[in-house]
Amino acid sequence: MNFGSDNMAGCSPEMLETLARVNGGRAMPYGADLVTERVKGTIAEVFETEVEVFPVATGTAANALSLALMCPAWGAVWCHPESHVNTDECAAPEFYTGGAKLIGVHGPHGKFTAGALASALQYAGYRGVHEALPAAVSISQASESGTIYTPAEIAAIAELCRGRELGLHMDGARFANALVTLGCTPAEATWKAGVDILSFGATKNGALAAEAVVIFAERLRSRAAEMGFRRKRAAHLFSKMRFLSAQLEAYLADDLWLRSAGHANAMAARLAEGLAAIAGVSLAHPVEANEIFPILPQAVRQGLRDDGFQFYDWPDAGPDGVRLICAFDTAEADVDAFLDSARRHAAAVA
Amino acid sequence: MNFGSDNMAGCSPEMLETLARVNGGRAMPYGADLVTERVKGTIAEVFETEVEVFPVATGTAANALSLALMCPAWGAVWCHPESHVNTDECAAPEFYTGGAKLIGVHGPHGKFTAGALASALQYAGYRGVHEALPAAVSISQASESGTIYTPAEIAAIAELCRGRELGLHMDGARFANALVTLGCTPAEATWKAGVDILSFGATKNGALAAEAVVIFAERLRSRAAEMGFRRKRAAHLFSKMRFLSAQLEAYLADDLWLRSAGHANAMAARLAEGLAAIAGVSLAHPVEANEIFPILPQAVRQGLRDDGFQFYDWPDAGPDGVRLICAFDTAEADVDAFLDSARRHAAAVA
Amino acid sequence: MNFGSDNMAGCSPEMLETLARVNGGRAMPYGADLVTERVKGTIAEVFETEVEVFPVATGTAANALSLALMCPAWGAVWCHPESHVNTDECAAPEFYTGGAKLIGVHGPHGKFTAGALASALQYAGYRGVHEALPAAVSISQASESGTIYTPAEIAAIAELCRGRELGLHMDGARFANALVTLGCTPAEATWKAGVDILSFGATKNGALAAEAVVIFAERLRSRAAEMGFRRKRAAHLFSKMRFLSAQLEAYLADDLWLRSAGHANAMAARLAEGLAAIAGVSLAHPVEANEIFPILPQAVRQGLRDDGFQFYDWPDAGPDGVRLICAFDTAEADVDAFLDSARRHAAAVA
Amino acid sequence: MNFGSDNMAGCSPEMLETLARVNGGRAMPYGADLVTERVKGTIAEVFETEVEVFPVATGTAANALSLALMCPAWGAVWCHPESHVNTDECAAPEFYTGGAKLIGVHGPHGKFTAGALASALQYAGYRGVHEALPAAVSISQASESGTIYTPAEIAAIAELCRGRELGLHMDGARFANALVTLGCTPAEATWKAGVDILSFGATKNGALAAEAVVIFAERLRSRAAEMGFRRKRAAHLFSKMRFLSAQLEAYLADDLWLRSAGHANAMAARLAEGLAAIAGVSLAHPVEANEIFPILPQAVRQGLRDDGFQFYDWPDAGPDGVRLICAFDTAEADVDAFLDSARRHAAAVA
Repeated sequence: MNFGSDNMAGCSPEMLETLARVNGGRAMPYGADLVTERVKGTIAEVFETEVEVFPVATGTAANALSLALMCPAWGAVWCHPESHVNTDECAAPEFYTGGAKLIGVHGPHGKFTAGALASALQYAGYRGVHEALPAAVSISQASESGTIYTPAEIAAIAELCRGRELGLHMDGARFANALVTLGCTPAEATWKAGVDILSFGATKNGALAAEAVVIFAERLRSRAAEMGFRRKRAAHLFSKMRFLSAQLEAYLADDLWLRSAGHANAMAARLAEGLAAIAGVSLAHPVEANEIFPILPQAVRQGLRDDGFQFYDWPDAGPDGVRLICAFDTAEADVDAFLDSARRHAAAVA
Repeated sequence: MNFGSDNMAGCSPEMLETLARVNGGRAMPYGADLVTERVKGTIAEVFETEVEVFPVATGTAANALSLALMCPAWGAVWCHPESHVNTDECAAPEFYTGGAKLIGVHGPHGKFTAGALASALQYAGYRGVHEALPAAVSISQASESGTIYTPAEIAAIAELCRGRELGLHMDGARFANALVTLGCTPAEATWKAGVDILSFGATKNGALAAEAVVIFAERLRSRAAEMGFRRKRAAHLFSKMRFLSAQLEAYLADDLWLRSAGHANAMAARLAEGLAAIAGVSLAHPVEANEIFPILPQAVRQGLRDDGFQFYDWPDAGPDGVRLICAFDTAEADVDAFLDSARRHAAAVA
Repeated sequence: MNFGSDNMAGCSPEMLETLARVNGGRAMPYGADLVTERVKGTIAEVFETEVEVFPVATGTAANALSLALMCPAWGAVWCHPESHVNTDECAAPEFYTGGAKLIGVHGPHGKFTAGALASALQYAGYRGVHEALPAAVSISQASESGTIYTPAEIAAIAELCRGRELGLHMDGARFANALVTLGCTPAEATWKAGVDILSFGATKNGALAAEAVVIFAERLRSRAAEMGFRRKRAAHLFSKMRFLSAQLEAYLADDLWLRSAGHANAMAARLAEGLAAIAGVSLAHPVEANEIFPILPQAVRQGLRDDGFQFYDWPDAGPDGVRLICAFDTAEADVDAFLDSARRHAAAVA
Repeated sequence: MNFGSDNMAGCSPEMLETLARVNGGRAMPYGADLVTERVKGTIAEVFETEVEVFPVATGTAANALSLALMCPAWGAVWCHPESHVNTDECAAPEFYTGGAKLIGVHGPHGKFTAGALASALQYAGYRGVHEALPAAVSISQASESGTIYTPAEIAAIAELCRGRELGLHMDGARFANALVTLGCTPAEATWKAGVDILSFGATKNGALAAEAVVIFAERLRSRAAEMGFRRKRAAHLFSKMRFLSAQLEAYLADDLWLRSAGHANAMAARLAEGLAAIAGVSLAHPVEANEIFPILPQAVRQGLRDDGFQFYDWPDAGPDGVRLICAFDTAEADVDAFLDSARRHAAAVA
């Protein structure tokens, strides 16, 4: 019973079926196939606007390519200090941009406010060529702390970006989880609020390995040819692209993405509610998607592990913090078993 | 009926089955899963030696990572001017190394000899810090012209490399096709002949998207930790690695890789034999694996295309050159149909 | 009367004389000349230890090369958020390393303590390949706020570095100014306290354009050949190196460097003392070298400027902060004139 | 008596004088000084057109920055295989561009023709994103073999570039030497013939260390701000820029540059004429500037060295090839002494 990460889950049955379905016969390679053509259209429909779409296989690739399109090698990107791009990608954004600088904007629960960003940007550019050129802002939806930006919060950030000609990137590795909670349209959660590029994740929500860079902003869509070169030289242009695109197609078909995320979120809510009710247990962050960050006494953590539960200690959430993540296929019974175990060990501690 | 490339084929049924097989339950991410553990062992067995294995999803990633491990940013790699690393990877090796230089060593039919390499290296290093540091040699097996290096040829090249402390990389995107023709062991075709790192390809031979960097040389295996960082920051560390490793596992199980390559080679031989017998048609290169480079008069090319056959014009093979590639699932009937069409149009020309 | 920066001063007369002195006849290029040979020996004597020396022409080059030798492209360097390497070099360290990450360690007055560093490093490396590899720490001597690390403070930081195999770099753009204040030997201020590489600056202290990377640590000195390649490919290997080395030679001859820095520091102390005595004026940072950061009311700033004094507003020092810097040739009369003007305008405000 | 390179000479007396002249008082740093302002105007006058000028200290920096402005990280630059950018800059162009590819265009005597370039470019771009994007062409004036492109030859190359939207760079490390021979205006030798960017060298012709990137093309001049960031992050923005600009100013004043180059060329012609008259000695390349590449029997080479003459063996010019270079201050007596020695040793061999 593993709550370590949604990427420890396998893939949705629909994913395997779609792979088999597109497997027949020959197809043009490198994205010139019909499946890729089709899924680009689907993504445009889902987001209700013109887009450029670049399927890739990892979230890190999607993020690093997105930032590299928006930020020159001598540029700077503002992001939360605990964001995935800053702490979990082994400097891939720096690699892909050619050496850009990521600058932290602090804020509680994995998010920063427009106000915090405004402060961070107050003197940005003041030193001219001596400092990295202000180029972009990146936010995570849902954040690394499992919280969510509302469209209004995004719009406030986006307004700052527009005023300073900064691109706005959204790391949507868990975009579906956020969207389900927000209850708005994909468009409202992204470009209508001012997002220029979305790293649209599927892997953590039931795909084998499929993400897409979705470009909304016209000034960036016009550089799609450049993005093609960037993806290829980064070695992320798949020859048998249909197998990547097919995952995205299955993901969006029949609302699979929303159903999967909805289930994960529901399980997380159940887990959070149960944990919050246990004396001596608290939650470091609001639970708004599929991640839970409880503060669990050492004895409880050990007890849970002895009972066979797997999860990571999470120092960012505090000294006794742990991270639990529910996936598209997390069983309610496993959640309840976890809660039972936690209750038992917490009682023993008390 | 598409002879454009082996990457236009889909995947082997065994591949889809193996994906389903590894899909159950939770697995540790990022390569800490059991499938990955297992396939590393299998690869060591297949190559009869200690290895470090880094699964990735594209051949370009495998090549670029391999060269980056062997060559510093201020280094130089010698390779055939028409090699994939030099002409088909959009400067990915340059990107991954941080700016190394690829230097062409000419030779007929996509290969270069040890003698040609010795000439190219004669004054290498003469200018000290003013020139790029001689660091590595890369050969392709099979080559971009469909030809094959014998173990003896490789050994002669490797001897030059050892004498100058150059790493020897083999781009094995079509390694199985070469091996089947050579009839030797994987070990004899690689490390026993002096190869330090192999880009071990599966995608072109029936996988969805699976390759592996296989490191033989002890001095490079000892830098496996570095390679781990390199792969991650290049965004090629898959979270659900089991799906990548499973493809490699299926590839090696029951000699699937050799059977698939054997079929592709047989179809290529059939095609080559048939074409060579047609008056007015010649072959630009010996056919030693699954690629055929016929010289076809324009009218014949047009006739074939009118009959529904797809293939690329290939200027590297000459003004009337085309490239045909057979895959693991190329049907004999399609080969024969191609030959019939070619014969008919060639006769009309004559 | 310009207090904007020590780099707005010209060069010492001794510098021009030495250029003329080394100009006769032919000399081997690229550092193989006798002047360069000689100055390397002199630097070894001055620092009382074996060193490798790489003269370059800008402090940014010295810093970026130093960090690149200590930190791989996938590595991280801890430094003060306001340090020159982080804010004033347009991401040159990121460029030279190939994309490493600079991580801020906060602390008052431009310095951080060993305790603050220990906190920052507490979970460094916890995420393995997912985060940038902890590789180096960089401190500035004097700092961007004009303060100085004592040998004991450096030693405490160095001890943390050694325990974690991190390199310790010192940006010594104003090393002479710091040394004069410390009153210790160059050795005590650097390698004896645990510094691995020093960017040894001369430009801000009277050279035309001359700095040197001085490598102390044996494990880094053994990589001098690599540094040679790094400097050349960064385009910082001067063909007529004697003119660069001659500046360093003149700098160290007859204690010119210490006399020049001593004068600049004395002028800064005089300025600081005078300013501190003015009602309504305070100093944002202790004045320990040649930089002064007074908080001056807007009317005083304007009045000074109207009187012909030039200096920068300095937001890092506070809303009304400015930066004043004294150079090797700052005239006492100019300092007194500045103080007179400041007093007059401050009185008018009060 | 050293004929090794023009960079083994010192600097013109005028250079030292100008350094002293600009040394008085304070000056704005980083190129905002009056000397830099002035020399930009002078360069515009000399070239009779609008230009953007970026002074730097090394030819490698000038070349690498120029190419980086014209060629993206995923781009390709065509140049002569023996060109300085390809063989003598330790992959600095690759570093500065972020990993672009230099592709050789062969031709005798260090030059290539428009025809050779047309052949090399015939299929450039054919593979789309799979190959590096054709971006620029670089020629050397004078070439590494001491030969010169005529304006007509340049114009033919430039026409090919325009037709394919390739930038045209000229490495003018020895531009003055070429210009003196051509007898045309600087404008005719550059932008009027289609050159987009010139690396305008002074170091080899009597400066201490001064070059300038001179941008002619409007579409590149409009990216001057970007070039400013590029120069800074490459650590080539000098704080005391006046000392760099002053060298360029002295260089252009009173035709110093042309007089210096004229003398060097005259000495080279004298040397060439003398050598050509010696039985058993031939010249590998026409002598059109200040470089001479004689083929000297081993005994003659040894004899010359025994007599105290210094020069490099030059394998590019043939097995017995050597390179001799005359500088702005090469003494006629030294040339004659070299010829006497060569005659004596050649006679002994015969």
